[in-house]
Amino acid sequence: MITSASNPRLKLVRRLESRRQRERLGLFVCEGEDLVEAALDAGLEPAEALVDAERPALSARLPGAEAVAPELLRDLSSLAHPPRVVAVFRRADLPGLPETGGPRVGLALWRIADPGNLGTLLRAADALGPAFVLLSVGCADPTGAKAVRASMGALFRVPLAAFEQRRGSLIGLVPRGAKPLEELRLEGELTFALGAEREGLPDHVLSQCEETASIPLAEGAESLNVALAGAIALYEWRRRQR
Amino acid sequence: MITSASNPRLKLVRRLESRRQRERLGLFVCEGEDLVEAALDAGLEPAEALVDAERPALSARLPGAEAVAPELLRDLSSLAHPPRVVAVFRRADLPGLPETGGPRVGLALWRIADPGNLGTLLRAADALGPAFVLLSVGCADPTGAKAVRASMGALFRVPLAAFEQRRGSLIGLVPRGAKPLEELRLEGELTFALGAEREGLPDHVLSQCEETASIPLAEGAESLNVALAGAIALYEWRRRQR
Repeated sequence: MITSASNPRLKLVRRLESRRQRERLGLFVCEGEDLVEAALDAGLEPAEALVDAERPALSARLPGAEAVAPELLRDLSSLAHPPRVVAVFRRADLPGLPETGGPRVGLALWRIADPGNLGTLLRAADALGPAFVLLSVGCADPTGAKAVRASMGALFRVPLAAFEQRRGSLIGLVPRGAKPLEELRLEGELTFALGAEREGLPDHVLSQCEETASIPLAEGAESLNVALAGAIALYEWRRRQR
Repeated sequence: MITSASNPRLKLVRRLESRRQRERLGLFVCEGEDLVEAALDAGLEPAEALVDAERPALSARLPGAEAVAPELLRDLSSLAHPPRVVAVFRRADLPGLPETGGPRVGLALWRIADPGNLGTLLRAADALGPAFVLLSVGCADPTGAKAVRASMGALFRVPLAAFEQRRGSLIGLVPRGAKPLEELRLEGELTFALGAEREGLPDHVLSQCEETASIPLAEGAESLNVALAGAIALYEWRRRQR
């Protein structure tokens, strides 16, 4: 049982709170039974697994897990309720977008810096697709604690790739003035592009779009949260497939 | 100029970080130019207004504002970038749901405890309605800092009322198994009921619903974030009105 806060496994988990360290080591942390189970269900194998010595979780599925003194596990956690399990996974084990095949629809996210929005968009891609998700430079890290949590496990199922790997037509979603989403033809492979909350999509991305579309808003309303806009685009796409 | 942290106006703002104090005093705090301006645009008058002495904001619209030493205003704020203005408003001045008239569609939120989700739902009600929002006991406080921020000013425009004040048909949104949302008749006045993230709608609320509906999800997907579900319901309603 781990009883010292200076144990190297605990140190590793703390080190991975930093995005730079996650990128350098290619590892990230996942807290709590639901998320760790979602990772295992998706076929990921943990690099490290730590369980509460007094109330171990997922014992049958984590035979190599290390027991940790409860107060140390609590100190490690970013959650209000201390988790019974914390595991470290490899970023390279997350699903990528295959050259061919895979989802026929996706979201291309331009500088979505809020990790909660990013995680919620992954969850929407999983639930309303299946869809892939493309991330530009400047997006939040999808393997950061807040994004992992907001994704509710979708991170382990949704294929991720770089913003440039768009598939089929690129449809830029803009807050107003473009063709209403429901009047768009939504056939074949396509990628919806979504811009940062304040700045939207920059001109050089808009110029790559085959079309732009807007979600019709009530009079006087300014804009939708980007996660809602992405989810509505996927909802509309799914509705048309039926 | 206020130069002491023990100034009663600053003390009031700090006191209003607590939900209990907001409820007791019937006041709440709004930080930053965009939000304070949204409140003024909606016709609310501040009970107090504090501006950064070195870079005052909205001076023309806040003639009675008190200048505050910048470092004191920064210490007061929950934001990463210190605001140039902080104002206190009265909860009673927020729009309510009139006996007759007002929006013909709304969201009834059952124990939505996450203030970010609540604020995002207010923003969706504003942008995809206009819709009213009903709150059950156990919901987050819509006047808390996080909810106000996520609402992006929608708090000042969306009529709020108690969960029991539903209008027209009550349609319970459930994660799966009910009639697909798009097959529902969406005519006349109606209220979509949305349940807490984990527990969903309890039986006694479901039994009051005229109908239940589900947003069709991809195979294997568990559920949508409640804010996305509410936004998609309003999007679908709006689409049918055209």
